[in-house]
Amino acid sequence: MTKLTRTDFSDLDAKDTLAQWRGEFSLPPGVIYLDGNSLGALPKVTLARMQDVIAREWGEDLIKSWNTADWINAPSRAGDKIASLIGANPGEVVAADSTSVNLFKLAAAAVVMRPGRHKIITEPGNFPTDLYVLQGLKDYLGPDYILEVATREKIPAAIDKDTAVVVLTHVHYKTGLMFDMAAITRRAHEAGALMLWDLSHSAGALPVDLNGSDADLAVGCGYKYLNGGPGAPAFLFVAKRHQEAIKPPLSGWMGHAAPFAFSDEYTPAPGIRRNLCGTPSILGLAALETSLDLMVRVDMAELRKKSQKMGDLFIRLVEEKCGGHGFGLASPRDCALRGSQVSLTHPEGYAIMQALIARGVIGDFRAPDILRFGFTPLYLSYSNIWDAALILAEVMTGGLWRAEEFQKRAAVT
Amino acid sequence: MTKLTRTDFSDLDAKDTLAQWRGEFSLPPGVIYLDGNSLGALPKVTLARMQDVIAREWGEDLIKSWNTADWINAPSRAGDKIASLIGANPGEVVAADSTSVNLFKLAAAAVVMRPGRHKIITEPGNFPTDLYVLQGLKDYLGPDYILEVATREKIPAAIDKDTAVVVLTHVHYKTGLMFDMAAITRRAHEAGALMLWDLSHSAGALPVDLNGSDADLAVGCGYKYLNGGPGAPAFLFVAKRHQEAIKPPLSGWMGHAAPFAFSDEYTPAPGIRRNLCGTPSILGLAALETSLDLMVRVDMAELRKKSQKMGDLFIRLVEEKCGGHGFGLASPRDCALRGSQVSLTHPEGYAIMQALIARGVIGDFRAPDILRFGFTPLYLSYSNIWDAALILAEVMTGGLWRAEEFQKRAAVT
Repeated sequence: MTKLTRTDFSDLDAKDTLAQWRGEFSLPPGVIYLDGNSLGALPKVTLARMQDVIAREWGEDLIKSWNTADWINAPSRAGDKIASLIGANPGEVVAADSTSVNLFKLAAAAVVMRPGRHKIITEPGNFPTDLYVLQGLKDYLGPDYILEVATREKIPAAIDKDTAVVVLTHVHYKTGLMFDMAAITRRAHEAGALMLWDLSHSAGALPVDLNGSDADLAVGCGYKYLNGGPGAPAFLFVAKRHQEAIKPPLSGWMGHAAPFAFSDEYTPAPGIRRNLCGTPSILGLAALETSLDLMVRVDMAELRKKSQKMGDLFIRLVEEKCGGHGFGLASPRDCALRGSQVSLTHPEGYAIMQALIARGVIGDFRAPDILRFGFTPLYLSYSNIWDAALILAEVMTGGLWRAEEFQKRAAVT
Repeated sequence: MTKLTRTDFSDLDAKDTLAQWRGEFSLPPGVIYLDGNSLGALPKVTLARMQDVIAREWGEDLIKSWNTADWINAPSRAGDKIASLIGANPGEVVAADSTSVNLFKLAAAAVVMRPGRHKIITEPGNFPTDLYVLQGLKDYLGPDYILEVATREKIPAAIDKDTAVVVLTHVHYKTGLMFDMAAITRRAHEAGALMLWDLSHSAGALPVDLNGSDADLAVGCGYKYLNGGPGAPAFLFVAKRHQEAIKPPLSGWMGHAAPFAFSDEYTPAPGIRRNLCGTPSILGLAALETSLDLMVRVDMAELRKKSQKMGDLFIRLVEEKCGGHGFGLASPRDCALRGSQVSLTHPEGYAIMQALIARGVIGDFRAPDILRFGFTPLYLSYSNIWDAALILAEVMTGGLWRAEEFQKRAAVT
């Protein structure tokens, strides 16, 4: 195989059908941003939209905006847009709260929907908040309940007649390894269990087919590949067939059938809205919805193709340019099994990532030894991939990561 | 008593020591905004601050802002500012999630902190989300648990040895009637129960003394008197003495002792932060904190005095100008028992409020018959009170509310 050259990458850019999307995002000069899997970039249109929400909708129209700007339907409106990205139907998704809170709502409700079953299944090394939320739920449910943390190979056998719900993250946050959504869902259903998917590293990153996989429940993040802004509202999905049965314990007024009747008795809203709880963040939803208005116009099949190609090229470049520097590949080599990221391992991963960031290549580090590089095809060019790999090679061959300043751990890694 | 004249009000304005605060808020011309108890007005400084958060912190500094802009400590930073307004100490309050979600966290945790006790007490007509959240929690806890909804007079007797937690809203959302926080808290403690206060209509509206009242737990709203913007993050308070014992079932990664260690086991953070759950809304917290930076400079005793005087004058004016039009007074006449609002009753309350709004006097309606007028001394003048009462008189004497357009109910009232 001939070695790659920069021309190969500029040629790919010239033919890139998604290239025009880059202009929709505000990115600082001199930065190659490979951390859209942690915080998506700012769509240019968001700033003007937020100014309008703040100055006009809040500042001028004040309380009336619940009606005149239709704030009241923002969770469903954003939800319907997300639905189109994850293989769900309108009315099956709402946006509100955080991924963690939504996960609690749905996992807690799933246990009630499967009475007499005492087991919740997940995998070790799942995104920490998923594990923590399930641990908190299990403790709250009491000693009759079990949280079984089964490794990936053991999950199919672990799912049994006592299993209420299986909670897994579709694309692993560290490795990018993807579950076969349809196969695991089928296995859960064979045992009569419900399947709850965390799509935090899938939604907006690759085509997801919740209904095609017969999924029951799902949650996901608004601030990663959906570019909704820091701490953006998350989303949750409940398949149509479960919507009248589900009853999350967090029954707040926004989930009521008639929130402005101010009745003393809780009557859950018909449909997906009963899964809302308190007053949603209108500012957060406005930023998220603005970004979603871009996302829904994207050809997700094209995006997936570019993302996979970028990952493949990055792996090949790292092996060509950084061989012998001690990197391992934590992500699957087969792009069909990989989300939109490539993760490398290195014992000095933290310092290496700091040195990269200092040179404008922004990825992130996940303890103990993972360097994560996210590929967001909407605002990255193929040339960015070449440049990032070359800078990584410079950091390694020059030993730049050994500088003292790169060893100090920050509060947030 | 001689009748009031407009001069009385302009005289009061001339001597008003809080008058300069009005300039800090962006209010539309021609509007008298008496709904700050539902959605606080926009502080002028917020728009510029949000532009900076969006364009620079998110757009330019991207993921680094968790450290460089200290996003990670935003919930505690905002919390400490709120603490100074409600008689709490630094480290006893965090801002995040919605009031409903926070109420669930603390009420659910309170039940665990009082093992063997099966009763949660609240009052009928409490703000609906408080009732709904407690109903959802009770259902989730199972048939051994009781939600006792006792009228105000019966609450002291209802609190007994089986009571885990008493959940009450300090200032009633409809009537503005205020509980004696210290007395009810004392009664709860006598029986060994915990006391959880909802401060949604108190925080930023009047001086609150949580620690002086020996309160255990509290929640409250960021978008009413704290002017944090639509759907602003809410807050929660846990008294220092309970912070190591409390364990909310919503144990998400932001409540972990070391969220970026990415360990599989949940270890609650020491102190107040264990009560966080998922990633907080950074945009929401930025708007809230900007407003809090104004609020912490306000003399709350002066604010309370003006608020009470405004309420007294409004009641007197309504009685002088609108006598015989069928209004009742739903709020206490004694301003010492009243929050920062005056509520009137009228069988045609909805249409009357719509007619008022059409003339620029914005209050709100609460089913079945309450017209609510909130007094926010920071951005209201005494003359506003005179004008509002006169416009109400015109609406009544002219029968303006009978117009067809004012009868139609909007989605949000």
